[in-house]
Amino acid sequence: MTEPTPEASGSGEPPSKNALKKAQKEKEKAEKKAAAKARELAERQKKEADDAADVSVDSYGELPLIGSKDFKPTGKPRVDLADIEKLEDTEITFRCWVENARVQSAKLAFLNLRQGLNTVQAVVAASDKLSKQMVKFCGNVSTESTLAVTGLVKKVKEPIKSASIKDFEIHITALFIEVKAEVPLPLQVEDAERPLPSEGLGDEDEKASETGDARPLVGLNTRLNNRTLDLRAKINHAIFVIKSGVCALFQEFLSQKGFILIHTPKILGAASEGGANVFELKYFDRPAYLAQSPQFYKQMLIASRFQKVMEIGPVFRAENSNTARHLTEFTGLDLEMEFQENYHEVMSVLEDLMLFIFKELNSRYEKETELVRSAYHVEEFKLPESGKVPRIPFTEGIQMLRDAGEELGDYDDLTTPQEKHLGRLVLEKYNSDFYVLDQFPLAIRPAYTMPSPANPLLSNSYDMFMRGQEILSGAQRIHNADLLAEMMRKHDPPVDPNGLGTKDYVECFRYGCPPHGGGGFGLERIVQFWLGLPNIRMCSLFPRDPQRVIP
Amino acid sequence: MTEPTPEASGSGEPPSKNALKKAQKEKEKAEKKAAAKARELAERQKKEADDAADVSVDSYGELPLIGSKDFKPTGKPRVDLADIEKLEDTEITFRCWVENARVQSAKLAFLNLRQGLNTVQAVVAASDKLSKQMVKFCGNVSTESTLAVTGLVKKVKEPIKSASIKDFEIHITALFIEVKAEVPLPLQVEDAERPLPSEGLGDEDEKASETGDARPLVGLNTRLNNRTLDLRAKINHAIFVIKSGVCALFQEFLSQKGFILIHTPKILGAASEGGANVFELKYFDRPAYLAQSPQFYKQMLIASRFQKVMEIGPVFRAENSNTARHLTEFTGLDLEMEFQENYHEVMSVLEDLMLFIFKELNSRYEKETELVRSAYHVEEFKLPESGKVPRIPFTEGIQMLRDAGEELGDYDDLTTPQEKHLGRLVLEKYNSDFYVLDQFPLAIRPAYTMPSPANPLLSNSYDMFMRGQEILSGAQRIHNADLLAEMMRKHDPPVDPNGLGTKDYVECFRYGCPPHGGGGFGLERIVQFWLGLPNIRMCSLFPRDPQRVIP
Repeated sequence: MTEPTPEASGSGEPPSKNALKKAQKEKEKAEKKAAAKARELAERQKKEADDAADVSVDSYGELPLIGSKDFKPTGKPRVDLADIEKLEDTEITFRCWVENARVQSAKLAFLNLRQGLNTVQAVVAASDKLSKQMVKFCGNVSTESTLAVTGLVKKVKEPIKSASIKDFEIHITALFIEVKAEVPLPLQVEDAERPLPSEGLGDEDEKASETGDARPLVGLNTRLNNRTLDLRAKINHAIFVIKSGVCALFQEFLSQKGFILIHTPKILGAASEGGANVFELKYFDRPAYLAQSPQFYKQMLIASRFQKVMEIGPVFRAENSNTARHLTEFTGLDLEMEFQENYHEVMSVLEDLMLFIFKELNSRYEKETELVRSAYHVEEFKLPESGKVPRIPFTEGIQMLRDAGEELGDYDDLTTPQEKHLGRLVLEKYNSDFYVLDQFPLAIRPAYTMPSPANPLLSNSYDMFMRGQEILSGAQRIHNADLLAEMMRKHDPPVDPNGLGTKDYVECFRYGCPPHGGGGFGLERIVQFWLGLPNIRMCSLFPRDPQRVIP
Repeated sequence: MTEPTPEASGSGEPPSKNALKKAQKEKEKAEKKAAAKARELAERQKKEADDAADVSVDSYGELPLIGSKDFKPTGKPRVDLADIEKLEDTEITFRCWVENARVQSAKLAFLNLRQGLNTVQAVVAASDKLSKQMVKFCGNVSTESTLAVTGLVKKVKEPIKSASIKDFEIHITALFIEVKAEVPLPLQVEDAERPLPSEGLGDEDEKASETGDARPLVGLNTRLNNRTLDLRAKINHAIFVIKSGVCALFQEFLSQKGFILIHTPKILGAASEGGANVFELKYFDRPAYLAQSPQFYKQMLIASRFQKVMEIGPVFRAENSNTARHLTEFTGLDLEMEFQENYHEVMSVLEDLMLFIFKELNSRYEKETELVRSAYHVEEFKLPESGKVPRIPFTEGIQMLRDAGEELGDYDDLTTPQEKHLGRLVLEKYNSDFYVLDQFPLAIRPAYTMPSPANPLLSNSYDMFMRGQEILSGAQRIHNADLLAEMMRKHDPPVDPNGLGTKDYVECFRYGCPPHGGGGFGLERIVQFWLGLPNIRMCSLFPRDPQRVIP
């Protein structure tokens, strides 16, 4: 510190040039401060005067953080807007959020308010009982803020186009901001309402909209990077209400058939279903693996005499596939059951299950289905009028494709384009978007698949399809330990029946395990193909793929 | 090779002593073989003669592997033994397995047969229509074999003690082994029916039984090493039927309240809830982590306007705790909901939910509950007669413990023994095994917990207890991004609000997220404490702890 800084100059010395400048500055500062204070006081006085004149002063404003104040409730019950028809000419209070708010004039403002999948128009009009200050406040509430609104339910003469509630509007009498949304939003919810450009896999948002709309279409990556805002879109709410519904229907149907819900481990001591495509983790001082399916465990539970089991749980696949139909983590809907004489008993349960789900989606989730399908211009999901699901032998499927010009061998696996082609052929022939292929070639199925008694190159296994895409893979499983061990050794690639993760599985079939079969659905695929959506990521709340583990 | 071995001696040389011996041996061998062949022939002829005389030859035997023959079903419907009362004097066919079989005499054999949780006695008696050969076959079927049995349902005069069906027995007319169980079984199912010695954590099976029973009690590790046989015990079936039931009741109650079922990711890009106790995995070319709870995601979905969400899914904790109440993987029952004015709205939903579950377990799962509790001599689960769940402020709980002689500070966390002690005190005072502690000290809760308006050292958080043990932890969460970031930085240990896994979470509260709260139950704990079981591993099909990832 050889040179003193201005502020460090000794107090006993005469004022330097710098010191004079400083004094001058401080004087100016003090004057400014005084002026600001005076201004503030004037403003406060004006506001107090305005407030005194503001007849609505207690009917609007911003609430303190809820929970940081005492617990005394207002006692005003909050209303569900779904019940609005019963509430004409009643004053109601409800929680909602702001789609948009606009000041029409000094005396009039409009708001579009949303609650769940419902939207309603609200009006706030100045009168001798409602101040212009309140109108101004309401018309300037930031989009996406959460409100407690009180108002009169009034019938309108002309249906309101911009809201889902068309015959009523709210005449606001009180409006409090419960939680204010900051501006600007990183993603506009109204942009998230619009369909994805194509499969949405490109990193870039599309500059030119196909619809001729002036706004650019927002790409999938941008949406997923801002997923909590993206998910606010009604179209997304509808997708996940349907997804929740499929789970509920799956359980409802199977519970009635006597299935119990199981929870099998997701951490495995060995990569028992084959080493490829499996995630490895550190389990204390040893390696462990994430379950690629509950296959071995659900079968072991059949061996434990749980006659019919179902599971809903995460399934992990370390596949480096960046397609519109792959996820590294998805939700498996699994079931396994003993049968008496014939694995077709299992297939019948699976078919009836899906017919039940489709039927109930059509009735219980009609609104949500319509909301999504109309945005994507998707046709309805066709089901056979006879109620009988087309059950097509694999060899017949091959023949249909050959007749349509595809070249493929008797025991070849179908490619994705061939599957889709077959889907179109089946739709033409059977008028159904849902069907089953039965008796797949043995060589392309897992080692535990029961060979077919009709042809040793085929197997008692099946896939289910929606709109030409696979949603389920299933089979009769080998329930004899010696045959199972033999088939594992002969499999390509071979599986060691005495391995760490396979020994308990193979051995459990030595002690009287009944014949059984089952299958595993991909939940996101059922939702995707039901709605006809272009990308499976749209059916996962926070999708995981090789590029994405955040958020 | 200097000395030729006997078999290697040259052919041109005269027969040596050894060669003579060899010729002699071969002659004897040939004679033995001929004798064996003759014996075999005689046996076959005798069997053929017996079979010809065997009037029952088509009524018993071992079936070929089901599925390996053609698909033609017998058309005989299989009966559920639960319906037996309606079937008196009817001939029925049913799938079952063998608890035990014994030959009483050349003309009489008994079998104990099981199907699900039902057991029935069956008799096979020789007559002019039923051969002694069949009696012998039936009485020698190996334990745990799976059968298709046909027989007449007959009412008995004396109730049968050894079976769950006491008033009827089966008079067998046909018996086919569908799947034969090998002998010996590595674990006897009847041993698995008996209670565990103490908490069952010792590696050794107990040599001396406390009950004075001659059979040793089989320890938990032996049972878990042979889990597929262990699980066949009726007591274990009952536990997992109840576990399935708790899930169904959880969903049933919450669905009716408008909750939707969500599936949040289990693979996370960052150890967002703190780096301790988290499993790390290899995610392609980067590290990732297993979710310790769906906490951040369920809150982000509230920010996405899903007003009420629930999740049932695996939860992973890398805690090196080898206790009777810890698992490294368990099933979380999670819920999160917006509330209007007071987080006690959330607590009321949680309390009503649990009361509903308890009530319905008592009615719908009475049989299973009784079966398990009677084996472990567990008292019934007491609920308050008023229907009002004791909701005890944490400070009051501390005072109750102090009055009972415990020494602890106002803001100390409770130890497990203190929690159990408080459980006994609450049971005495309120006559309830279920209660809630409210307003926990802020310092012992996660950073996202809303501080209490009444006392900044407390928080709007709560735990729920069954029989003095915690089953749920929950709270109002901070729904303001700035306050949340501040509390995260001030937390011990501090959490970075701008971290890879925290940034999206904190930021989502900038855009109008409503006030909300929730909680997470441990499903296995609910089942354990409902039934009063000594070890949580009993409530997991294939439990995971630091020592166990197999089977």
